[in-house]
Order: sequence, then C-alpha cells, then structure tokens
Amino acid sequence: MSIPDENVIVVGKKPVADYVLTAILVFNEGYDEVIIRGQGANVAKAVDVYNALVARLQDGVELVDVKIDSFERGRRLVPVIEIRVRRRIA
Amino acid sequence: MSIPDENVIVVGKKPVADYVLTAILVFNEGYDEVIIRGQGANVAKAVDVYNALVARLQDGVELVDVKIDSFERGRRLVPVIEIRVRRRIA
Repeated sequence: MSIPDENVIVVGKKPVADYVLTAILVFNEGYDEVIIRGQGANVAKAVDVYNALVARLQDGVELVDVKIDSFERGRRLVPVIEIRVRRRIA
Repeated sequence: MSIPDENVIVVGKKPVADYVLTAILVFNEGYDEVIIRGQGANVAKAVDVYNALVARLQDGVELVDVKIDSFERGRRLVPVIEIRVRRRIA
C-alpha cells in the first residue's frame, strides 16, 4: 500500500463531507489524483467518501483503481482499502 | 454491479470463516471466480473475507478486481463493494 503522502486522505471519525472537502482542496492544490484510505471500520466510510465525491464532482472525477489489503494488529487482520481517484479535465 | 449469481457470496451477519468456506465450496463446484459482495457495514467484512481467503489459499487465488458503488436507501447512499477473486491453477 502507499506511503502516506499529501494526496492521501485517511478516513477517520470526521463526517464524510469533511473528507470530500479535503479531496477537493487536494485537487485544487494541483494534484491530479487523491487516494482515499480507510482501515478497519472505516473501510465502508472510505467508500462513502468516494461515492459522495462522485456525487459532488460527477464527471469531474474518475476511479483509477481500488486496492484492498490487510495488516496485523495483535492476532487480528485489519482490512484496508485505498481508492485512487483522478480529476478529469473538462 | 453484478446480478446475484451462484458464484456471488453476499457477506452478512455470519462469521467470516463461513464465507471463506462458501468461497472454497464455490471453487470446488467448478467456478473459476467468486465475487465477494458486501454492502453498508459489511463492506469491511467483505475485505475481511477476501483477506482470510488469501491467508487460507495463498497462491491458490488471485485478485481480479475490486468494484465500489452505492445505491440509495431512502435518502442515504449505501456503499457497496464487490471483490472478484480467481482460482489459480497450480
């Protein structure tokens, strides 16, 4: 999985709309792609952020790929998702 | 997203291990691919099932693709994931 970087949005406890706004800000800083990352219980929320971003920007974004993985926390496997989204130039 | 079919495993309230076993049974019935589908809170669990299946079958399976989507339930967007896994012939 990717090393955390400025265009990686780690989804946590904030409302979905906050992460959507962050994604738009990242695009406005000049990044062509953002990666929406969620782990554990935030995997579904990362998909929520993606869906809300698409609802907001519509044809302005496209899905590049979705990676799923896991890491060990103690004896448990924690699920991870990384959703890569690209800004489309109109 | 796919129409539910015999090789689509819809992840719900059962333990992860049950869905892993179901996936193995589907492969043993002769399907080359299974689709692990989760929606809402079960999106993360679908990734858990994928990770547990890979831990179990190791090089015997490979990820084909991951689709994410949503559907409307009332006024909310419910997230959906479909994880397509292929059996690798040794």
